Amino acid sequence: MEHNIHFLPDDVHVTVEDGENLLTAAAAAGIYIHAYCGGDGVCGKCKVQMEKGDVVSDNAASLKADEYKKGIRLACKATVNSDITVRIPDMVKADGKALKRAPKTTRSISAKSLESLVGTWDVDPPVGKLFLKVPPPTLEDNISDMQRLMRSIKNKRPDSPEPSYDHPELIHELSEALREAEWEVTVILLHGKRKDEPDRIIAVEAGDTTDRLYGLAVDIGTTTCSGVLIDLNTGKIIAEGSGYNSQIGYGEDVIARMIYSQRPGGLKALQEKVVYTINNIIDEVCKKMIISPSDISYIMTAGNTVMAHLMLAINPKFLREAPYVPSVSQFPLTKAAGLGIMAHPSVRMFLYPCISSYVGGDIVAGVHACQMQKSEEISLFIDIGTNGEIVIGNKDWLVCAACSAGPAFEGGGIGYGMRASQGAIENFQIHPETFDPMVVTIGNTKPRGICGSGLISIVSELLDAGVIDPQGKFNQTLNHPRIREGGNRWEYVLAWGRDSMIGEDIVITEVDLDNLIRAKGAMYAGYQTLLESVGLTFNDLDRVILAGNFGAYIDLERAICIGLLPDIDRDKFFYLGNASMLGCQISLTNHSRFRERVAVRTLMTNMELSENPDFMNHYMAALFLPHTDMSLFPSAKANK
Amino acid sequence: MEHNIHFLPDDVHVTVEDGENLLTAAAAAGIYIHAYCGGDGVCGKCKVQMEKGDVVSDNAASLKADEYKKGIRLACKATVNSDITVRIPDMVKADGKALKRAPKTTRSISAKSLESLVGTWDVDPPVGKLFLKVPPPTLEDNISDMQRLMRSIKNKRPDSPEPSYDHPELIHELSEALREAEWEVTVILLHGKRKDEPDRIIAVEAGDTTDRLYGLAVDIGTTTCSGVLIDLNTGKIIAEGSGYNSQIGYGEDVIARMIYSQRPGGLKALQEKVVYTINNIIDEVCKKMIISPSDISYIMTAGNTVMAHLMLAINPKFLREAPYVPSVSQFPLTKAAGLGIMAHPSVRMFLYPCISSYVGGDIVAGVHACQMQKSEEISLFIDIGTNGEIVIGNKDWLVCAACSAGPAFEGGGIGYGMRASQGAIENFQIHPETFDPMVVTIGNTKPRGICGSGLISIVSELLDAGVIDPQGKFNQTLNHPRIREGGNRWEYVLAWGRDSMIGEDIVITEVDLDNLIRAKGAMYAGYQTLLESVGLTFNDLDRVILAGNFGAYIDLERAICIGLLPDIDRDKFFYLGNASMLGCQISLTNHSRFRERVAVRTLMTNMELSENPDFMNHYMAALFLPHTDMSLFPSAKANK
Repeated sequence: MEHNIHFLPDDVHVTVEDGENLLTAAAAAGIYIHAYCGGDGVCGKCKVQMEKGDVVSDNAASLKADEYKKGIRLACKATVNSDITVRIPDMVKADGKALKRAPKTTRSISAKSLESLVGTWDVDPPVGKLFLKVPPPTLEDNISDMQRLMRSIKNKRPDSPEPSYDHPELIHELSEALREAEWEVTVILLHGKRKDEPDRIIAVEAGDTTDRLYGLAVDIGTTTCSGVLIDLNTGKIIAEGSGYNSQIGYGEDVIARMIYSQRPGGLKALQEKVVYTINNIIDEVCKKMIISPSDISYIMTAGNTVMAHLMLAINPKFLREAPYVPSVSQFPLTKAAGLGIMAHPSVRMFLYPCISSYVGGDIVAGVHACQMQKSEEISLFIDIGTNGEIVIGNKDWLVCAACSAGPAFEGGGIGYGMRASQGAIENFQIHPETFDPMVVTIGNTKPRGICGSGLISIVSELLDAGVIDPQGKFNQTLNHPRIREGGNRWEYVLAWGRDSMIGEDIVITEVDLDNLIRAKGAMYAGYQTLLESVGLTFNDLDRVILAGNFGAYIDLERAICIGLLPDIDRDKFFYLGNASMLGCQISLTNHSRFRERVAVRTLMTNMELSENPDFMNHYMAALFLPHTDMSLFPSAKANK
Repeated sequence: MEHNIHFLPDDVHVTVEDGENLLTAAAAAGIYIHAYCGGDGVCGKCKVQMEKGDVVSDNAASLKADEYKKGIRLACKATVNSDITVRIPDMVKADGKALKRAPKTTRSISAKSLESLVGTWDVDPPVGKLFLKVPPPTLEDNISDMQRLMRSIKNKRPDSPEPSYDHPELIHELSEALREAEWEVTVILLHGKRKDEPDRIIAVEAGDTTDRLYGLAVDIGTTTCSGVLIDLNTGKIIAEGSGYNSQIGYGEDVIARMIYSQRPGGLKALQEKVVYTINNIIDEVCKKMIISPSDISYIMTAGNTVMAHLMLAINPKFLREAPYVPSVSQFPLTKAAGLGIMAHPSVRMFLYPCISSYVGGDIVAGVHACQMQKSEEISLFIDIGTNGEIVIGNKDWLVCAACSAGPAFEGGGIGYGMRASQGAIENFQIHPETFDPMVVTIGNTKPRGICGSGLISIVSELLDAGVIDPQGKFNQTLNHPRIREGGNRWEYVLAWGRDSMIGEDIVITEVDLDNLIRAKGAMYAGYQTLLESVGLTFNDLDRVILAGNFGAYIDLERAICIGLLPDIDRDKFFYLGNASMLGCQISLTNHSRFRERVAVRTLMTNMELSENPDFMNHYMAALFLPHTDMSLFPSAKANK
């Protein structure tokens, strides 16, 4: 159920989901409200006036009784469950006069629907079931049980070639299985990876089980693994599960994992940890649907190159050493149980192929999901994380590269940086005159730190308000208690200790700004280098596709404002979310799509940026907010 | 080196290998010589007169000095190492007069060369090696090691599709292997089982190892397993090895093995025993050639259906129960090491497909070897053992059946029956008037028992001399100490206790004769039933192919004489020897031939004889020497 919120005096209408937090809704709509404590109800700043309808307010007590009676509410403690009109107190200038200003644009404005990007697909999974009533053998007709099964399959689908079989359990169990089932069985058939390959019988089940056909898609992230259980008869997701990649105990990022893998027993330990993580996901989704893990007939996964190597216990040693070479890029179809995964021994696990050491299967799956390899249009595909991966191209060619953006967008290298979890500042506005903050956190708690999307908000707001200059240096002439010299660098206090979860001031410093500028500079230089390598400019792009969970939370205008994304027509931007998972889902649901992945891998050409002089030049020029070449950012110029 | 022997007074010329025993040579040529002790030199009966040249005689002492001087030798102790003329003492009638008679025909007269049957084939094995100088990776060219390898393969053979790979060891070891070998490696490629399948990389070796390419062909017999090591670059057999199938400790025949397999742990024990046997053969052939077992790149095997099931640890339970169904007839390509075989982990082991419970891969391999499935001519393929297997047909159709002949031809059910080993009577003649025997044993030792070929000789000679009648009953009117009533059945004394290795009389009884008649009757009824099922008669046969080691030792005339083989033009008979092994060798050496085996299996239709009324009728009619219907045996009639 959705509700309308009418914000006054800015006269902004937005639609929100039932149960949305009012402060979060205002921040998303670009409406500034004083809010120091992230939404925990303690600072008492975010008072708003209900003009029509009311919210559910769970902390009325912190307001005076007469305030509550007058319809005043704390936005951070207000839950929207009906259509309402809300008046935000006038913004006040430093001199006390009211300040009129337009609300900012927000990410949702430019988001396009998923379907326009990835299209639709039939439910035609790479694995299928066939129920057979097999005539029992007689003395006149005593061919082997396997031949008999094959004959029944042939009778049921006379136009398909005879399936193959190579699964030891199958040949060992078939005879008993047929007899126990009184010759009424369901065969599970795996379609060939290539078109000319015959189907493969992977298992035989007693009775008619054709209504139970499940597949699991897993995105193997360095930090988080997530899985979805799909009913392959309908193509619908029926359960989801996720968890931290348990490898995290051996290192936060892929570099740390690769280093750990070189210790005695390290590779094995890492392999076991990711398998443990996937087993937990299987356990979770199966419990939700009350099915057995052995009911899952196919597992489709994608992960970056390091994750894929570790998953298969392939030594990632040479990924780290110049010239950065994966051992294998096209991973053979593997039996999941052989890796320790809780699955029927016959079940295959597919891993999306990788392109290079740092452009992995997650990117191939993402590109595959959005069908770049079939489109006339030229797309720029971006996945921002510790390593930013970039793909440019269309149905005729695809170039890709990874740029070591550094971990700023994942909270690394930022003093109070953190992952996008409870208490992370995810949205931020600044009063353009008083420089007071509006801090919105994940979970509407007191702030604990800054996540990637919060960092982009903070930097773009500070830049916009003139608190910092394009080089990321603070305007030391501003006289405000939140702008101060701390330690040996200048900083801005996002939350005072009393308003923060950690009991100390949460700040952003010039060191943090340097790191952010380097990270976004690397990304931007990456786009430029790849475009130049194929003789194109930003104007030639038809689409910019933002992948990754982080991509889904980027505020487009703010990301362009700081120079993280190119300043082109906003209508060209698409948010794809977890593209890697989406690719797995599509491949798991539609076999023709699955087979197309070969085209993706074949088209993609990797470019190594790490020692590329063009990249270095572009990178140096991009260490500025938004850029040294302002002609690349016409919107920024227009705003000035 | 070969030598000519001229036997007098019969004026028979034969050619023998250097070192042949003179008594054995005489027996093979159908020349009768008194010989009671099998060739051990103790009975002193087999005196012959050298007329030209001489033999090497190692027991001159048992002759009187003047006898030796006169050129008299004991044939059983004489080794032929030059051309000689030998006079056999005149055969003497019961009344003392000389008896003139023609020597008998022998098996070698009708044997055709192998090549006329199986044709020739190019050396083009299903596994090949390719030496590659792989360009090392650079920053500009840093595709994965596997892709790099693939590219080098593609450059070397641009017209072949990209090979696949699914071998875990390969992907785990490739990167280190390439670097340790300084990018000069040899890949081992396995050609697809089907024509449309791409090659498969199974291993990578450092340096150029293309001159070392070996394959092993193994015939997995119930009693004996034998193997040949083949240099796949030349197609030549370079070493042979064999040994008893160690399963023999759990039962002599397939029935006993199947029974044992149903005991707890029985299946596993049987599987391990046959693997142990094969490992011994591998060890033997590798030691002979000073190569490592891991240098063998392919293993091709054939065995009967029970052996194949046990080899793969597939429960043979349903093979024994009506309607006698194998679990699997087309066995998947299996990794040898996975079964416990001493081989490189990548090496595939192929098992010839079986047709039914009692027509196994050994028969398919044999039929495949002699190319019945490609010939216009109609062939009758016979493998005589405990189970006699019969295949009839040509390139358009093949029908097959097994008849439970009983173990008579392998020494079972015969009082003094034994396998064809040291001391077994393998050839026999009887004096037509005195009824004295000429006993020739394997190894020219005192006799210990009777093997299958000996049994056929004995029965046909007894029948020919009128000692027994066509029903296998002794002529009780003959007054001869060797023909006597022993126990409760009549018998003939083949060797007196003093001349035998076991110190007791070795006899053949009416019970033995009954068993033999049943065994040969089952075979003959099998031929008739199969021929009738396709509307043919013996006259329609173009070829009769005798397979199996036993087949190679059958004396054609004698086998026809007792009704074991059809009485047709002797020129139609071919001896193929170990056809199963030959099929493996050919498949291992030539890939196109290997692929043809599918046609063999597809053409072959099994007929179950065990409860077939036509078979039963034919069987009853065949319980006669040679047959109740003498019109089927014109030669026998002619002799009378």
